[in-house]
Amino acid sequence: MRLLKKYLKVSFITINKNRFYNNLDYITSLVGDKSKLCLGLKDNAYGHGLLEIASLAKAYGIRHVFVKNDKEAELVKKDFDSVIVTLGRGEEINPKISYTVNSLEDVYLYKKGSFIELKVDTGLHRNGISCKDLKEVLSVIKRKELVIKGVYTHFRSADEDDYFIYEQESLFRDFINTISEEVNYAFRIHCANSHGIFKVLNTRYDLARVGIIAYGYNDIYPEKVNPILSLFAEKRSTRKLNKGDTVGYGSKGFVVKEDNYIISNYDIGYGDGFLRLDEKKKYSIDNGKEILGRVSMDTLSVEGSEQKILLFNDVRRLADRHNTIVYEVLTSLMPTIERRIVE
Amino acid sequence: MRLLKKYLKVSFITINKNRFYNNLDYITSLVGDKSKLCLGLKDNAYGHGLLEIASLAKAYGIRHVFVKNDKEAELVKKDFDSVIVTLGRGEEINPKISYTVNSLEDVYLYKKGSFIELKVDTGLHRNGISCKDLKEVLSVIKRKELVIKGVYTHFRSADEDDYFIYEQESLFRDFINTISEEVNYAFRIHCANSHGIFKVLNTRYDLARVGIIAYGYNDIYPEKVNPILSLFAEKRSTRKLNKGDTVGYGSKGFVVKEDNYIISNYDIGYGDGFLRLDEKKKYSIDNGKEILGRVSMDTLSVEGSEQKILLFNDVRRLADRHNTIVYEVLTSLMPTIERRIVE
Repeated sequence: MRLLKKYLKVSFITINKNRFYNNLDYITSLVGDKSKLCLGLKDNAYGHGLLEIASLAKAYGIRHVFVKNDKEAELVKKDFDSVIVTLGRGEEINPKISYTVNSLEDVYLYKKGSFIELKVDTGLHRNGISCKDLKEVLSVIKRKELVIKGVYTHFRSADEDDYFIYEQESLFRDFINTISEEVNYAFRIHCANSHGIFKVLNTRYDLARVGIIAYGYNDIYPEKVNPILSLFAEKRSTRKLNKGDTVGYGSKGFVVKEDNYIISNYDIGYGDGFLRLDEKKKYSIDNGKEILGRVSMDTLSVEGSEQKILLFNDVRRLADRHNTIVYEVLTSLMPTIERRIVE
Repeated sequence: MRLLKKYLKVSFITINKNRFYNNLDYITSLVGDKSKLCLGLKDNAYGHGLLEIASLAKAYGIRHVFVKNDKEAELVKKDFDSVIVTLGRGEEINPKISYTVNSLEDVYLYKKGSFIELKVDTGLHRNGISCKDLKEVLSVIKRKELVIKGVYTHFRSADEDDYFIYEQESLFRDFINTISEEVNYAFRIHCANSHGIFKVLNTRYDLARVGIIAYGYNDIYPEKVNPILSLFAEKRSTRKLNKGDTVGYGSKGFVVKEDNYIISNYDIGYGDGFLRLDEKKKYSIDNGKEILGRVSMDTLSVEGSEQKILLFNDVRRLADRHNTIVYEVLTSLMPTIERRIVE
């Protein structure tokens, strides 16, 4: 009864464990060894739930992960052999946690003796050390006794059908050679991201950093993985409307076209991170029914009287509606929504 | 030094206390009495930070607030005389906390003896008791010994220039009359929301529920209030690029048009709730500089080398860019971003 109460009247997310493990099995088959996987847990595990995904990943045998900041690292460090922090502040000196050096300023930021992961810019031109800064960066690293745990780069367009990735990989190897000449101890080397694993020779590298593909989205071989996150909402109220009535905000929202039209209101809205739809931007949920009129902060309406609705199992169609990418639809989901693991 | 470190390399939000209090002064002048204000704290205080806004509101003298769920109520109940939960589960029997009855099902959901706020549907057709259900609802309320603390409704289009609000208000008063005949104790009555306060006679009601206007957005008299939330990001790296280089993801993102072009990368992205922009959807930050190419999950790029950038002081222009409303831009901001109160 307590459980029933708890589960009433809320939106919730399910994370499918079996699908997640199948995705990880597939990725392992590509990179050759489970211990090479470095799973992306940043941004609340791409919206899937940091702690929930960390616990599943640990049980699967994942040993390395990457997160965004010190806080995320703090929450998951006990579960893994190594945690790469991509945009950290360097709060802790711990051989398990390596802070990414994205720029010359980062080398100065991190404390003496910190463990770092050196990121080099090979063409994405976001973060990463540029060629011209490398010498100075290496000299400050030496002076501050920072320990290079690894060196990596990030691809610009691994999901596109171009050859730029090979230019980047070649430049990356030049960087590695230069660094190896200056550093007299071993460090790990990695470059592949989710779509990069299909294009580089994974045996040449120590880790493959996989994010979106582990969560079931693969633009190159879409059928090989399956999305693991589903979003549900519970009904709050049902009402019978007549021709001319409107639903939700605005006189120009949804206008009912017939008498005795039944609609229900569900406890989910853009305040929960379900991006806003309105009369100009429409979407039908998985049972084919359209979301009526404007999504409000906490509520949306659908025709009929079902107790529970499934908003999506797969966010590709919704991402198209919003002219965005699946990543944004997923990471927008508020951490306050309960994540339930299902099999 | 510790403080400096803490404040380096992060995106952060400032909440301007003086502007907030000026907005509340203005609203008080409209509704006649500070103790009539019922401030909206739902959805992390419209993205402004639940605890930060609760503490400012308490210090100002706000006595009543509304929140979305039981969890938000739990976090702020100590600070106010009454908390209305709009979409609760009814976990606590506490005269300070009233759970909104949105439907017949809600009356059955809440525990015997609970304190409730009865919401009636006068035309929004989202949640709220419909006319035909009122009798049954009142009879179950009696049987379950629920205590009606208040009765309210919500306007459909108070911000539009139509007369529908007066139809709604008239219907609301019919509801009140019916309820008063059945209930032999006093309860509070309220209907005005942010834009409704300009249209109804506030002396007739016990509370005015104000949300977006307190946060500085007022579609009717925009100049009377000022936005209180600003979003900043700190620089992570700077680089010099040449003609033909791209910035960020995709070969079709931003392409540099001249040699020796300086850009910097800042620690904010759509994973932080700064809605995604790309080459088709552009926005210039407050200093007039355009965000270059695609916003990624954690990073965006701007020309130049400023240490800190202001993304916005006012989200109206950005909401237009995204074809959405200011509410969505604000509530999307992740609760994980630090909120700092400034004067």
